[in-house]
Amino acid sequence: MTNLDHAYAVILAGGKGERFWPLSTSRSPKQLLSLVSERTMLGMAVDRLEGLIPPERVIVLTSADLVEPTVASVPDLPAANIIGEPMGRDTAAAVALGCAIVKARDPEGVFCILTADHVIGDIEVFRRTLREGIDLAAGQDVLVTIGIQPTFPATGYGYIESGNAVEHAGETTFLQAKRFVEKPPRATAEQYLASGAFAWNSGMFIWSCTSVQAAFGKYRPQLSELIDTLAPSVDSPGFADALRAVFEPLEKISIDYALMENADNIVMARGTFAWDDVGSWPALANHFPADDEGNTSIGDVVPLDANNNLVFSNGRLTALIGVSDLVVVQAEGATLICPRDRAQDVKALVNELKARGSFDELL
Amino acid sequence: MTNLDHAYAVILAGGKGERFWPLSTSRSPKQLLSLVSERTMLGMAVDRLEGLIPPERVIVLTSADLVEPTVASVPDLPAANIIGEPMGRDTAAAVALGCAIVKARDPEGVFCILTADHVIGDIEVFRRTLREGIDLAAGQDVLVTIGIQPTFPATGYGYIESGNAVEHAGETTFLQAKRFVEKPPRATAEQYLASGAFAWNSGMFIWSCTSVQAAFGKYRPQLSELIDTLAPSVDSPGFADALRAVFEPLEKISIDYALMENADNIVMARGTFAWDDVGSWPALANHFPADDEGNTSIGDVVPLDANNNLVFSNGRLTALIGVSDLVVVQAEGATLICPRDRAQDVKALVNELKARGSFDELL
Repeated sequence: MTNLDHAYAVILAGGKGERFWPLSTSRSPKQLLSLVSERTMLGMAVDRLEGLIPPERVIVLTSADLVEPTVASVPDLPAANIIGEPMGRDTAAAVALGCAIVKARDPEGVFCILTADHVIGDIEVFRRTLREGIDLAAGQDVLVTIGIQPTFPATGYGYIESGNAVEHAGETTFLQAKRFVEKPPRATAEQYLASGAFAWNSGMFIWSCTSVQAAFGKYRPQLSELIDTLAPSVDSPGFADALRAVFEPLEKISIDYALMENADNIVMARGTFAWDDVGSWPALANHFPADDEGNTSIGDVVPLDANNNLVFSNGRLTALIGVSDLVVVQAEGATLICPRDRAQDVKALVNELKARGSFDELL
Repeated sequence: MTNLDHAYAVILAGGKGERFWPLSTSRSPKQLLSLVSERTMLGMAVDRLEGLIPPERVIVLTSADLVEPTVASVPDLPAANIIGEPMGRDTAAAVALGCAIVKARDPEGVFCILTADHVIGDIEVFRRTLREGIDLAAGQDVLVTIGIQPTFPATGYGYIESGNAVEHAGETTFLQAKRFVEKPPRATAEQYLASGAFAWNSGMFIWSCTSVQAAFGKYRPQLSELIDTLAPSVDSPGFADALRAVFEPLEKISIDYALMENADNIVMARGTFAWDDVGSWPALANHFPADDEGNTSIGDVVPLDANNNLVFSNGRLTALIGVSDLVVVQAEGATLICPRDRAQDVKALVNELKARGSFDELL
């Protein structure tokens, strides 16, 4: 057996993705949308593991009310591998839940925490990074985090500062992680980029059940206990009830805050593949070609003397005359129109629609 | 019998109204749209005649392919009064056609040529103007035209210059019409407005069959002959064929060009009622209230930090963030977005869509 025989993937797919309204809704959040290909974002996340981790060892965590559409979105996975959290308890609880499932199935398991709604390119480099990270995490008591080599001074991502190299056979660079920092202001982000010592926090991790449970034991004992309490009922009829019982009393804490900002055995794998968290409509446009006037059009769009617009026209014709720098999104029953630089306010709009109370079927 | 017993209305309802795309289409042109009330524009034009001209004497001329939806739009009129022109031959031919129908039914007939897609207020004043105009046209060999008292220096309308008063009992002012002028440049329009001697050419006329046929005889003999050729077959099974035979060889000429710019017996009735030809989406907005931010919204519209927009949202939600001075129109299958001051380019857009060939069902 190689280390890969013990490798699991736990994909966190519980996001609401309100920033992609009106396409994303409570029943159809970002990870279940086919934003950049015919596959859903989650389907693409599963596809990326092909040849590395077989479907029976790919686990998807989502919210209980999204289990059905999630199962439909990834028909290649065993339905039993789509787990619905009875209530959202943030990423630390999700990691503990994933650990309980993997540990129950394979006490020697090593699992990758992966995201369901990011766009990743250079798939072979991505797979190699995971494979070598799994190998490292299987052999040592370390928590591996994937840091993305930054390409611009992003203010929308957290950063990881790295230190000395960690020796490991293979092509991936592993470095000691010195600290995790929150989204920085612009000037700080520029210093980070210039220093070469900072990487973007991708939210992807690799660790053995043993190591991550040990870390929980040190910094969040409640989550270590959760793993032991829950593991015996995994794959049994009582699992849903057991999960509800352990989840309900938890406070919401992110894995960064619970473990990564505390642990001293963190190793950062330098991710040199293309990566984008696609956090907004304008970010999505980067994944499509633009015409000579700078218009990015998905679907039937006819621009007349219009430029630099971004139009997602689903099942309708969108005709533009003389407008610039707009985001236009057509969805079933609703149309969004906003300037590119106001796309971050879509969440505020969704809140406004919620407050009005008469548009629930569109949210 | 009073003159009103011989009064007919001929409503010209053949317009294509491309400027109201995407709501107006070839199957549903402007006059068949319910733009300012639940009634269609044509239905409102018929309603305005209530108490003045009974339904059996109201005739609607449209294009042959629009007869069916036009009949459906004005169920109060006898279906036989909706006449489809086999091909468009402009307004002079339509007036001659209307004259043939009226003359066949009542050789002493006096008829009003009315428009199907304008908004008219002060209905009592409008009716009084028609009634007194009918009275004048029944008693003298004159061609009555209704000139609208201008309220701003419009460059989008033709003008009528008026001269001496024509004596006639009643409250309407009748003046000799000295000349018809085409849409003027801004400076000229300002002079017209200041002079007080110019009125907008509304496209509405009142004349007896005798007088208008005599005028055709002088200036367009072919159209006078058309009346005599066609009248015997009116209301007979052979009418459609007869109409096609006389219409086909006609050249397209407007009534202004054929008669009004030539005749010397034209009297202008001063129309002091509210009148708007509603030539574009922004013009339509004037007939609806705006919110405190200047947004005019018809249907479900949620503006966030958006102002001075004009949104016709039919059966969909339109959400706006941070945009200003836009016209947004939602129709079955298509959405139009353009700045208010580019709304006149909708026709160019429709041409572009026609040229592309793949949007025919939306045109």
